[in-house]
Amino acid sequence: MVSAVLFRQFFDSESSTYTYLLASGSGREALILDPVKERVPHYLQAIEQLHLKLVLAVDTHTHADHITGLGDLRAATACVTMMGQFTKAECVSAQVRDGEVLNVDGIRLQAMHTPGHTDESFSFVLDPAQPRAVFTGDVLLIRGTGRTDFQNGDPEQSWDSIVGKLFKLPDETLVYPAHDYKGWTVSTIGEEKRYNPRLAGKTKAEYVAIMRNLKLPDPRLMDVAIQANLACGRPRTAA
Amino acid sequence: MVSAVLFRQFFDSESSTYTYLLASGSGREALILDPVKERVPHYLQAIEQLHLKLVLAVDTHTHADHITGLGDLRAATACVTMMGQFTKAECVSAQVRDGEVLNVDGIRLQAMHTPGHTDESFSFVLDPAQPRAVFTGDVLLIRGTGRTDFQNGDPEQSWDSIVGKLFKLPDETLVYPAHDYKGWTVSTIGEEKRYNPRLAGKTKAEYVAIMRNLKLPDPRLMDVAIQANLACGRPRTAA
Repeated sequence: MVSAVLFRQFFDSESSTYTYLLASGSGREALILDPVKERVPHYLQAIEQLHLKLVLAVDTHTHADHITGLGDLRAATACVTMMGQFTKAECVSAQVRDGEVLNVDGIRLQAMHTPGHTDESFSFVLDPAQPRAVFTGDVLLIRGTGRTDFQNGDPEQSWDSIVGKLFKLPDETLVYPAHDYKGWTVSTIGEEKRYNPRLAGKTKAEYVAIMRNLKLPDPRLMDVAIQANLACGRPRTAA
Repeated sequence: MVSAVLFRQFFDSESSTYTYLLASGSGREALILDPVKERVPHYLQAIEQLHLKLVLAVDTHTHADHITGLGDLRAATACVTMMGQFTKAECVSAQVRDGEVLNVDGIRLQAMHTPGHTDESFSFVLDPAQPRAVFTGDVLLIRGTGRTDFQNGDPEQSWDSIVGKLFKLPDETLVYPAHDYKGWTVSTIGEEKRYNPRLAGKTKAEYVAIMRNLKLPDPRLMDVAIQANLACGRPRTAA
């Protein structure tokens, strides 16, 4: 995958969440995407052993299925915590705007507002001038898409984000989602265009109908997780 | 990770097994390492969707915790099935010798006999002239090592394989094991030298004592899996 970058993908088997740690091959500053609270000791171990300094922790959106590690990572490392500009989580120390390019020690990530799973979801494109990978959060999954039935999710917005924005990236762009439930670790934009069963060969109306008929149960941790995540996973007094 | 190679890591959550699919960026022939029987439809889906032709399926050793997909992949694709030269699995269509270099459409993998977890375990070094990655099976895990208490496992051999062979690879060589239970997906030789708690700062005698005192229960599927795997995961009449 992504070369000339120190790149680590971590898996939380409880929530099937993927978390990503990126650093410049030459530098020592690192950023992390979508950390899980219970796994923070693991990330800190890796950060220490790889001789990195965590400067930024980002959530792609307010997760409903696990508690974020943003607050604990900030407490442990004094990193900046960040979400997209439309988040309701007032605890984050910074918000990123649609189109803005984050630059951490040479790692360039362009923020892209991709609502649909939630109205405040962002994706992040690695090396926007010549896209190599995109971290899609829950809006685009491997051979699937994130549900659109809560937190102001909207299947029409999901289609527009995926087909209108993510699918404009080059076909060879690697796709790293925030979850996988079936044993995939990575995909590409071209693969998802051709083989995502909810999208390939479908019209927008067909996609919307599919998403409106999923009838999924609420995530087990939903009520706890959303409230906790609006406080970056820490008690409000400590956030 | 490994660039200029089509590389996919798959995870089987039942047995926490990692399976690897490799192909040349330019060509279409592929090989797979340590496939899991129940996941064969998933691999076949990926192989078809990535427009690959599977020509080789390799097991690093006779697994005791899951049933191999070698036989089913051979039935589906007519690929060569292969294990190391000391395997007792007569079903495989080829055996690889210690030091031999496999070449699949430009993907070069050097076989390295690394006994210890079992007496017939092999590791495979990607691009042996300038090692980029090593697939270590169960002998070297991330921050751990494979148990040495059955199938002619031997802690002294395990130490010699890891410290005497694998740790001679360059520090930056990526380590891809056949299992992980803690959410890691990859490591490097340098990290394991410095931070593997069973090895770093330990003598061979200390390592042997650690391994002799693990007192692990037998794998749940052990009796079924070993017998099945000696037949490549297929009934003997169909192997």
